[in-house]
Amino acid sequence: MSMDFGFDMITEDEYQRQRALYEPLTEAVRRLIYASLHTDVGADAAAEARTKIEAVTALLETEQRASVPLVHENTGRPLAWANPAVGLRNAIAPPMVIHHEDDGSCWSEFTLSGAYEGPPGWVHGGICALVLDHLLGEAASEGLTQPKFTGTISLRYLRGTPLGPLRAEAFVERTEGVKTFARGYLKDADGATVEAEGVFIRPAWARDAG
Amino acid sequence: MSMDFGFDMITEDEYQRQRALYEPLTEAVRRLIYASLHTDVGADAAAEARTKIEAVTALLETEQRASVPLVHENTGRPLAWANPAVGLRNAIAPPMVIHHEDDGSCWSEFTLSGAYEGPPGWVHGGICALVLDHLLGEAASEGLTQPKFTGTISLRYLRGTPLGPLRAEAFVERTEGVKTFARGYLKDADGATVEAEGVFIRPAWARDAG
Repeated sequence: MSMDFGFDMITEDEYQRQRALYEPLTEAVRRLIYASLHTDVGADAAAEARTKIEAVTALLETEQRASVPLVHENTGRPLAWANPAVGLRNAIAPPMVIHHEDDGSCWSEFTLSGAYEGPPGWVHGGICALVLDHLLGEAASEGLTQPKFTGTISLRYLRGTPLGPLRAEAFVERTEGVKTFARGYLKDADGATVEAEGVFIRPAWARDAG
Repeated sequence: MSMDFGFDMITEDEYQRQRALYEPLTEAVRRLIYASLHTDVGADAAAEARTKIEAVTALLETEQRASVPLVHENTGRPLAWANPAVGLRNAIAPPMVIHHEDDGSCWSEFTLSGAYEGPPGWVHGGICALVLDHLLGEAASEGLTQPKFTGTISLRYLRGTPLGPLRAEAFVERTEGVKTFARGYLKDADGATVEAEGVFIRPAWARDAG
């Protein structure tokens, strides 16, 4: 197995230019996901919608970029624009915007719509797992600047997580050799709904690189 | 907390009619998610794409259904059309199509595109968790026919999961009172990449209902 962690550095100006271009586009796709999930239009309108979506897809495919990770030159952090949890350019992502504190902890406040629903009215348990796996990974990898892979993650569901505004938090408990132990919570306005513990591992190929 | 598990029963004919209408629409949205994630078009084309997407969203919003769960009258199983793991109508879902065996186990074969990428070339660990949480839940709840909520789930990442064709499997190990213990695996062509163990709980409100 080969892993390519090559990347392109981008400036703050270029970051802002691309963000202004693509963030509203991704937001429009998110709203389309939700509208298509709940639409009750008939066959003609559904076919018309499909044809128009395919035309937009063709337009966007006229120029495609190589999927080289971008790293911001000011922060040294990957943008992770394609990431399904935090990706500014991935309509699958809520997206989570991650805030890193000086003590190494991180948090995010975001809203989960009905597109993330499992049991009626509640967030799908696997989406809670996605959100927490990502946030614990951010804490363990110092904002994705260190190559760390999830070794194990355990989630304890304390009660249902309602759709709507949520907060997630994560921090590193300790590090032992190549293992980093992280913990985190998903919370609604009344407190924790899911607790997570994860062990993240520094891969062998990165150990000599320091 | 109130939970409404009311549902509408639909016939096989109506299922096929709605599926023919909405499955291709959702597939078109999935391709759009991918194209918008990787596009390198300039400001004019991006603005044009956004305007056209917003027009399709408005068209689909002209008729919206109430989000009442649908249950197929032949199988007695919820369609889970809006589900972010298996939803035929949710463009966030790969989607997984779940096969239930007579012995209670279940499996699914599906393909994860770059829209589910974490580290370059690999499936996001949280997406592996979403897939396995869902499949273990299917096994524990007899195809979502029993109300069961995830109590805990633990995932062990054996190695990286490559993007592309994958298989997931799950089965019930044992049941003790209100707890059902399930196990499952995510696999590529070379075998297991992630192992999962979950405890699923029959909620108090459903215990008397038998």
